[in-house]
Amino acid sequence: MTSEPVPSFPTSLGASDPDTITLLGKDLAADLMGQVGFGELALWLVTQRRPTQAQVRVFEAVLVALADHGFTPTAIAARLTYLSAPDSVQGAIAAGLLGGGSRFLGVTEDTGRFLADVLAGVTGPLPEDDAGWDALALTAVRAARADKRLIPGLGHPIHKVTDPRTPVLFAIAAQEGLLGPHLKLFAAIGRVHTEVLGRTLPLNGAGVCGAALADLGLPPDLLRGFALLARTAGLLGHIAEEQRRAIGMDIYLTVEQHTDYQPPNVSPESA
Amino acid sequence: MTSEPVPSFPTSLGASDPDTITLLGKDLAADLMGQVGFGELALWLVTQRRPTQAQVRVFEAVLVALADHGFTPTAIAARLTYLSAPDSVQGAIAAGLLGGGSRFLGVTEDTGRFLADVLAGVTGPLPEDDAGWDALALTAVRAARADKRLIPGLGHPIHKVTDPRTPVLFAIAAQEGLLGPHLKLFAAIGRVHTEVLGRTLPLNGAGVCGAALADLGLPPDLLRGFALLARTAGLLGHIAEEQRRAIGMDIYLTVEQHTDYQPPNVSPESA
Amino acid sequence: MTSEPVPSFPTSLGASDPDTITLLGKDLAADLMGQVGFGELALWLVTQRRPTQAQVRVFEAVLVALADHGFTPTAIAARLTYLSAPDSVQGAIAAGLLGGGSRFLGVTEDTGRFLADVLAGVTGPLPEDDAGWDALALTAVRAARADKRLIPGLGHPIHKVTDPRTPVLFAIAAQEGLLGPHLKLFAAIGRVHTEVLGRTLPLNGAGVCGAALADLGLPPDLLRGFALLARTAGLLGHIAEEQRRAIGMDIYLTVEQHTDYQPPNVSPESA
Amino acid sequence: MTSEPVPSFPTSLGASDPDTITLLGKDLAADLMGQVGFGELALWLVTQRRPTQAQVRVFEAVLVALADHGFTPTAIAARLTYLSAPDSVQGAIAAGLLGGGSRFLGVTEDTGRFLADVLAGVTGPLPEDDAGWDALALTAVRAARADKRLIPGLGHPIHKVTDPRTPVLFAIAAQEGLLGPHLKLFAAIGRVHTEVLGRTLPLNGAGVCGAALADLGLPPDLLRGFALLARTAGLLGHIAEEQRRAIGMDIYLTVEQHTDYQPPNVSPESA
Repeated sequence: MTSEPVPSFPTSLGASDPDTITLLGKDLAADLMGQVGFGELALWLVTQRRPTQAQVRVFEAVLVALADHGFTPTAIAARLTYLSAPDSVQGAIAAGLLGGGSRFLGVTEDTGRFLADVLAGVTGPLPEDDAGWDALALTAVRAARADKRLIPGLGHPIHKVTDPRTPVLFAIAAQEGLLGPHLKLFAAIGRVHTEVLGRTLPLNGAGVCGAALADLGLPPDLLRGFALLARTAGLLGHIAEEQRRAIGMDIYLTVEQHTDYQPPNVSPESA
Repeated sequence: MTSEPVPSFPTSLGASDPDTITLLGKDLAADLMGQVGFGELALWLVTQRRPTQAQVRVFEAVLVALADHGFTPTAIAARLTYLSAPDSVQGAIAAGLLGGGSRFLGVTEDTGRFLADVLAGVTGPLPEDDAGWDALALTAVRAARADKRLIPGLGHPIHKVTDPRTPVLFAIAAQEGLLGPHLKLFAAIGRVHTEVLGRTLPLNGAGVCGAALADLGLPPDLLRGFALLARTAGLLGHIAEEQRRAIGMDIYLTVEQHTDYQPPNVSPESA
Repeated sequence: MTSEPVPSFPTSLGASDPDTITLLGKDLAADLMGQVGFGELALWLVTQRRPTQAQVRVFEAVLVALADHGFTPTAIAARLTYLSAPDSVQGAIAAGLLGGGSRFLGVTEDTGRFLADVLAGVTGPLPEDDAGWDALALTAVRAARADKRLIPGLGHPIHKVTDPRTPVLFAIAAQEGLLGPHLKLFAAIGRVHTEVLGRTLPLNGAGVCGAALADLGLPPDLLRGFALLARTAGLLGHIAEEQRRAIGMDIYLTVEQHTDYQPPNVSPESA
Repeated sequence: MTSEPVPSFPTSLGASDPDTITLLGKDLAADLMGQVGFGELALWLVTQRRPTQAQVRVFEAVLVALADHGFTPTAIAARLTYLSAPDSVQGAIAAGLLGGGSRFLGVTEDTGRFLADVLAGVTGPLPEDDAGWDALALTAVRAARADKRLIPGLGHPIHKVTDPRTPVLFAIAAQEGLLGPHLKLFAAIGRVHTEVLGRTLPLNGAGVCGAALADLGLPPDLLRGFALLARTAGLLGHIAEEQRRAIGMDIYLTVEQHTDYQPPNVSPESA
């Protein structure tokens, strides 16, 4: 309609010409395929800096930890969507990912953001020993408590005492020299929260994953995205299993057979 | 409403009890985290058989090949969705994946299925040398031509002569001893199609990825799913880039400023 | 990157300037709001021709017929997605719509397309009486049977004898003078199929809706879209009900409590 | 796995038995089809109370106002998704709806919630005249200003002086006797905000729609859902137009041709 000039659209991700495909400034075919793992590439795509092998190991441990937990609401939603629209695998995957919001998958992101906010409020140098981290954690937990905010990453509906992922991810990060301030603060919260809350809760796996991702330098606003990437692999597993041994119809029929129909409760004048 | 018995819902993926998380029959924390790569786990989740390192290398090469191609329609859709709903990263990823249908990402699946169908039609042993594969390919290409069906995996809008991913993936598969019947048949199609079609087209990267995935024993009905997994990593890269240097608004304004409004062309009686 | 000229992007839907909003060539505020119903507008948006009141009545009867059927797989998927991500109503609606594929909601579109294809194959004038329609229907049913194709719109898992929507929609279309060739052919299929199939099946509601939409002149490739529009209203009802009296968690727990975990059945060498 | 009792799943929406389909406690075929409009049904599905004709008129005016605004980011996302996956209309619609988040479609919901929160804070009777509403509005605007919160529903990027939808929707609500406290408070904000903000902004259409929906008794947490329902009709219009006269490919090519590839800016040691 107009002859407005068109802006250019910058990107540092992919580009092609007739002979070459470039990705992240590298030659995809010559430099990346067969030489770079998929987890490594995913981390590189987000940070646009080639990760170290230590970073990749922690990152892939997080993805492995988050990939699947059996019949979660998101896995069930994906299976039911596949039942209804088997012609559209992308729709079933998308439906599963759409449950990656505040309540379940959100813990990873919420924990990373909570820790980052506490660290951002520190003036002066960060603590150098456990006592220093404990003091910082105690202040943060008390502040959250005073505001009636929950501490994200604390507690789990099934793993009441210990989430088995938590000590393992701390150990991997320590082995790789990547036990950074977010993980240290999260560990301190694990040590001190009982004093404020009056009961002992485990540090959960989703939370420790958020802390580890934040220590890799990943932005808090995107941590949920890594949980989604991990979950995409899990959802593919569910759809493959649904193809071999479908249960979506049984879930649907179970709900239908236990339906309790109750006509709307209307007063006479509005009926 | 009824006391219908409830069926059990079998799965071999994930499960939890208070002390343990099981995935694929393994102890997630003790046996998988830090020891299994993410690509390896994704392949394992779908096949439910632990892959060999050779299989993992080919599989990850495919994922790397498919992860991103710059400003594809799906990447643009994801960025525009993120612009509109920045509070919902899962929605932006899902919107991007929903373009993973028949036209663009579908080539991987279509090629795998085409090759699998040709192989399924072979009675007796498979060919043992290039001449044998060429004969089989020639029959298949002629049959498709006679039915006016396109040969999936042939041709590319940009890479008119050679798609740089194709020779590299063949080489990786050969190195790993995984040059199976789908890849051999696809290579033969590359050699013989000119004779039938009257022009020479490159074997494209999406197609060779489909052939390689099929040779890994993955089901044709799920090949699109691996393109979606790869693309999830690419979409995360796009959203991270949008967070750093947004272009979604510029894309939208470009379209808006070049809108040509044309009132509906209605005949008088229907106006 | 280049100075390629930018094409213009034509549309006849909406446009704005500082003082006016135009929709379908009309002044939205002055000519449409408060004067045009929502169903009427939806039909107009698709056809870009103002519908008659007769067309609107049939169209809205179809939307009402398709809006909700209780705990369908799509409604369950939407509720589970809302449970997981209550901050994203759009994600829950989208997840519900993604089940609008080939298996459930697809019947409307499949029936419309089947009927349109049969009518497109008629050379010469269309039948003028029931006997003529019956002959055409018989040929079509026999052809489908010979190709082992199902006749879409025939049969229903619950309404084994009569789908109560079917006679009502035929009656409304007749009242409005909109009993066109698609509905007439569908009715004839209802009369003659027993002769070919050897058993009597009801014409189902989704199918008759597809026939009625096709008689409104709507394109077969978009009929699924109207089922989706209708279903969006139903999904809003489900989410509102979930806000008042949530059952998503109970569905999830029912599945979890009846999970039967079976470690993958792997042979020793691959374990 | 266990013999846990299964809960019943209550609903007041749809249910079926072999002869009847029930919706909202009514016989769908006998009492609703052909007798109830689609907008009327949508409102009824959410409130579970049959709306009056006055309520339906205001409600449909809102849906008409929100249905389409031309090439919005959500419409472009839907068209690009349809380009990539034309076999999945549901995916294109879902992709378009996923942009219905905080930034664009969210204004309707944010305005309704803002007004509801102010009204919930009123102790004693609500104002009885404009002076009283102005005083309440002034307090609310000052409080928001003091907290550096934006007033939702104020201002529009194109309609700098008046959004043409706003006076029309006020007039329709007044005609129908449905000018309730949310609309009255919103009007008062329109009169008094200049005094606090130092400049005059229009009450925008999305905001007045939110106020009108809140006056219909609809829950603030679901107002976004009605914008999504309206937008579903608009998206169908876009996909129908894309089928007739596609522009998705031109949008994609425009972006691609103006891509400015910039290799990642990495420091030497991380390259």
